Amino acid sequence: MSDTLAALYGLIESRRTSAPPGSYTARLFAAGEDEILKKVGEEAIEVIVAAKGQGDDRIVSEMADLIYHSMTLLALRGIDWQEVEAELARRMT
Amino acid sequence: MSDTLAALYGLIESRRTSAPPGSYTARLFAAGEDEILKKVGEEAIEVIVAAKGQGDDRIVSEMADLIYHSMTLLALRGIDWQEVEAELARRMT
Amino acid sequence: MSDTLAALYGLIESRRTSAPPGSYTARLFAAGEDEILKKVGEEAIEVIVAAKGQGDDRIVSEMADLIYHSMTLLALRGIDWQEVEAELARRMT
Amino acid sequence: MSDTLAALYGLIESRRTSAPPGSYTARLFAAGEDEILKKVGEEAIEVIVAAKGQGDDRIVSEMADLIYHSMTLLALRGIDWQEVEAELARRMT
Repeated sequence: MSDTLAALYGLIESRRTSAPPGSYTARLFAAGEDEILKKVGEEAIEVIVAAKGQGDDRIVSEMADLIYHSMTLLALRGIDWQEVEAELARRMT
Repeated sequence: MSDTLAALYGLIESRRTSAPPGSYTARLFAAGEDEILKKVGEEAIEVIVAAKGQGDDRIVSEMADLIYHSMTLLALRGIDWQEVEAELARRMT
Repeated sequence: MSDTLAALYGLIESRRTSAPPGSYTARLFAAGEDEILKKVGEEAIEVIVAAKGQGDDRIVSEMADLIYHSMTLLALRGIDWQEVEAELARRMT
Repeated sequence: MSDTLAALYGLIESRRTSAPPGSYTARLFAAGEDEILKKVGEEAIEVIVAAKGQGDDRIVSEMADLIYHSMTLLALRGIDWQEVEAELARRMT
């Protein structure tokens, strides 16, 4: 399991119960599932637009956004990120 | 860095130069960037549709698809997956 | 109301109750709402990818696909296309 | 050709050369193609999310948004909306 991704998922999940003032993650949870789903879709589109002419740095940045918002969806649903890694591991065997 | 994700990225990248017959990853590379970008977008939409009524198992499965196709885009562009994890790590500090 | 679009919507709607063998529209209705929603999303992404390098003819073709699949969603839900045009007319006043 | 849609397209196009202060359409043109493309993608996603639980009124409203932003893309590219209707007409014959 990724140290970075496990740590990020843990951080996101912790924002559901206690968040510092102004936390973007806490605002996302408060906005609710439909808003988080829209963000997942929007970030995927930003990856596409970045890939078509905005350079590698933007692709990396938008993909980081996509992973982060995807993890927020999982955390909202109570699905551990590890399940996604386990599914990917299963497919490699 | 994630053992699973690092291994998956390495596997995807290896398919660019030598792929077993019938490899889906090799077909994706042959189809080219536009087709891979469409897959990234489509898998994000499938995550959304799964979240709105198809259950947690489907969310995990579609999110695994989204990660896999995102990695394929990175590999096509010669961007290491580690750069995305590094970007996420940077944001957490 | 557009003659072309009204006619297209009428044609799509008629496919819900009687469709010639092999009708793509009838297959879409049979596939159900989630599949039609995925097509709406996919066609929007194809518009984006077309706009980023595939030329004006492809934009027109993908946008026609987007309109057609959007109308199929409306027909499945029993929402008349005229309601969308009425909403757009309202915003222009 | 739709009276409503032809009028809307004409209105959008006129905003490229002369726009009242605060015009949203003028701001979109100023933001440029990538931003308009993101809006097309986002509105398609909002149609999907609306269809999965927000009711018919929201579907109509989001689809009106999708048509409007799609037309803005066409206007930016100098593609007449009539070309999309002509393509749809061609497919019906």
